[in-house]
Amino acid sequence: MTDSFLAQCRELIGDAHVLTDDADVAPYLSDWRGRYTGRARAVLRPADASQVAALVRLCAAQRVPVVPQGGRTGLVIGSVPDDSGRAVVLSLRRLNRIRAVDPVNRTMTVDAGCILYDIQQAASSQGMLFPLSLAAEGSCTIGGNLATNAGGTGVLRYGNTRELCLGLEVVTAQGELWDGLRGLRKDNTGYDLRDLYIGAEGTLGVITGAVLKLFPQPKAGITALVALRSCRDALGLLQLAQDTAGPTLTGYELMSELCLRLVGKHFPDLPQPFPTPHPQYALLELSSHESEQHAVGLLERTIESALEAGLAQDAVVATSIAQSRALWAIREHIPLAQAVDGKNIKHDISVPISRIADFVEQTDALLAQAWPGVQVVCFGHLGDGNLHYNIAPPAGTPHEAFLAYQGDINRIVHDSVAAFGGSISAEHGIGALKRDELPRYKAQVELELMRAIKAALDPLGIMNPGKIL
Amino acid sequence: MTDSFLAQCRELIGDAHVLTDDADVAPYLSDWRGRYTGRARAVLRPADASQVAALVRLCAAQRVPVVPQGGRTGLVIGSVPDDSGRAVVLSLRRLNRIRAVDPVNRTMTVDAGCILYDIQQAASSQGMLFPLSLAAEGSCTIGGNLATNAGGTGVLRYGNTRELCLGLEVVTAQGELWDGLRGLRKDNTGYDLRDLYIGAEGTLGVITGAVLKLFPQPKAGITALVALRSCRDALGLLQLAQDTAGPTLTGYELMSELCLRLVGKHFPDLPQPFPTPHPQYALLELSSHESEQHAVGLLERTIESALEAGLAQDAVVATSIAQSRALWAIREHIPLAQAVDGKNIKHDISVPISRIADFVEQTDALLAQAWPGVQVVCFGHLGDGNLHYNIAPPAGTPHEAFLAYQGDINRIVHDSVAAFGGSISAEHGIGALKRDELPRYKAQVELELMRAIKAALDPLGIMNPGKIL
Repeated sequence: MTDSFLAQCRELIGDAHVLTDDADVAPYLSDWRGRYTGRARAVLRPADASQVAALVRLCAAQRVPVVPQGGRTGLVIGSVPDDSGRAVVLSLRRLNRIRAVDPVNRTMTVDAGCILYDIQQAASSQGMLFPLSLAAEGSCTIGGNLATNAGGTGVLRYGNTRELCLGLEVVTAQGELWDGLRGLRKDNTGYDLRDLYIGAEGTLGVITGAVLKLFPQPKAGITALVALRSCRDALGLLQLAQDTAGPTLTGYELMSELCLRLVGKHFPDLPQPFPTPHPQYALLELSSHESEQHAVGLLERTIESALEAGLAQDAVVATSIAQSRALWAIREHIPLAQAVDGKNIKHDISVPISRIADFVEQTDALLAQAWPGVQVVCFGHLGDGNLHYNIAPPAGTPHEAFLAYQGDINRIVHDSVAAFGGSISAEHGIGALKRDELPRYKAQVELELMRAIKAALDPLGIMNPGKIL
Repeated sequence: MTDSFLAQCRELIGDAHVLTDDADVAPYLSDWRGRYTGRARAVLRPADASQVAALVRLCAAQRVPVVPQGGRTGLVIGSVPDDSGRAVVLSLRRLNRIRAVDPVNRTMTVDAGCILYDIQQAASSQGMLFPLSLAAEGSCTIGGNLATNAGGTGVLRYGNTRELCLGLEVVTAQGELWDGLRGLRKDNTGYDLRDLYIGAEGTLGVITGAVLKLFPQPKAGITALVALRSCRDALGLLQLAQDTAGPTLTGYELMSELCLRLVGKHFPDLPQPFPTPHPQYALLELSSHESEQHAVGLLERTIESALEAGLAQDAVVATSIAQSRALWAIREHIPLAQAVDGKNIKHDISVPISRIADFVEQTDALLAQAWPGVQVVCFGHLGDGNLHYNIAPPAGTPHEAFLAYQGDINRIVHDSVAAFGGSISAEHGIGALKRDELPRYKAQVELELMRAIKAALDPLGIMNPGKIL
């Protein structure tokens, strides 16, 4: 291959959008957490779906691997190239138009490169809600959210990104444009291609557009932080809250005492809601389509019942939007506090909700046995059975040194997840980071089915090679 | 092929469960609406998933086509064999165990042959709701619901069967058993095989088990029938109801004046809710997790606003469970009244909700132009954009004779659906009935992707041949 490939790229999308200088290319090569930097032949920045299709056709003809990239905020090294330097990075960031909003159908049609925050704002400006919400929302693109089937804090009520998408536009691995931009709640006309591309992390094709579901904007939201004796009580409170508040319960997050301690240590300006520490905390969010009074009533009823039943030890209810934000800020600062504290070994796991307390208890014990004093920073979306189960070294052990045990710790945690019928990647995906873990935890027949699909849709193997499989 | 194939089947599952006598086989060969009768080499009735796997392995080895069958209530000739007599019918009806209920995870694990009604009852007996509900629920199996991604009357709030399933157990076309019975709300570890098998109508493999989502049982439900001037007003009322009642609105059905007239004619014992006829009617159902008073309050507020805004002309609110059932009975008797009235030409279509009124107006006009006096029996799940748009002959024209125009009428209706960005099968599937319509309405690239997947997962082409593709 000579420069003729790049010359053809330039012809297709313009000189300015074919980046090859090291300084221009560098920002596209490193993963979000800074653990990996790859190399690329070029970064291509097409303007629209037809340019994407033309580029992929060219890449297919010349067998050039394609690494689709959105906001590059993924956590599993899924959107950066390997170090061979053979691949091009295909940045979707210039595809950033909100194509249409249909308030009666409650849908929005968007380019894949739209920033999640901009989509949330566009919905809200029309009195509607796009409920996908996650830490990187100011930088991540909806195409990346779709490619990784992102989760976040609204899944309990509204589902994962998968459930928020009605239709897709995709450039296939052959560079053909599939217009599946249907705004339909029901469509049973053949195989579910949409859900196959969603969560495939760019290994089967390139998502260039989507039809998203919108919801009526709730009239009021209210937040509470409840102090608990244990993870098991957090499960009891979840049941109670769901039975009491039904679909009004839109968020349910768990945080351990250590999480709040870390936040307090590194962000002392954030409020400390309780005078004394408690082993666990649950953050509840209720959203009402009726009134604030309605949400407050349901929340108070939930908390009163929980206190009476001995499930809750104490509770703080936010009485203003500022207070509500402050409670959420504690939750959101946990990963930031962890980062300041030093590198740690992260896991994004899920188990059936009914087994969470047992999982935490048993896995904590296994780790403590292997590394006495090890610190488990456990928090996450309890309502979805999804925990961020992160491991920091015993006090006094240097964080960097502790990273040497990453493989051993992953083995304990992931084997435990498997024993509880769980998933080693609940909401982040596989990427390159967890690829080699997959064969241990997937049945051979499932891996073969996945490989058969990969070979059928990307027979040349040019789409994001080395990710997932 | 000789009888050795059947002898091997008998060895695998027992003589009593390999049916070959005409009288035994006959009930498995005809489609639900009695339009088609195929032939089969035998009917196989395995007892469990491992017997299914053994049978499929045998069929694959001997290239015997396999037609999976559940309750045989499908509407698109998808679960009966063709007339070659080469295929075996694989009846899943003996796989009818409810394997487990997990009230904390809110999941139920079931065999594919469980009757939908039994699943609803098993959930309800534990104070939970499995919200899939449709006319055939007393006979259809969950495996068939999954294979066709069935819809029904609860989709507005709870989604299609696809959204109600967390995990699957599938026998592949090679006769391997894939255990994907995960009870996880979040799992991003590779391609979404689950959603590929759901809606594939048995053409990629055989669903033998599933993990289903359960919901807290609402404490109260309330129903109202609202008289409307037009389909457009029905859309306005839908918006108003969603904004007022939020997730409490769990059902929204449309019925035209002709629908109620037909029901009144053939089922005169059913109530006639209004003294004078109105062009359209909307059936609303609200379900509250709080109290009956809460549901009534929201419904009254919705109806008052609709009357004030001139959207509603009149309304009847059910004040007892018996009255609520009577209102639903009107809706449920429409297809029965149609059947008594004579054969008609049925369509199961969806369009974006915002375009429904225009679609109905324009398609009605096109049909009236081609067949003056033609009668459109239009009703369905307006909240999902899904209508049953059925065509009966002009008064005086014999129904049977009118069926000769089926092809021409389908063309007008389906072309109109396509022009409005809709689907020619919203909730019934493709089967053999609509297979030849598909190439007209699917882009070539989408058909090629579907064929590539079929070839990858069922390279011998033995799974339910002649259906979908």
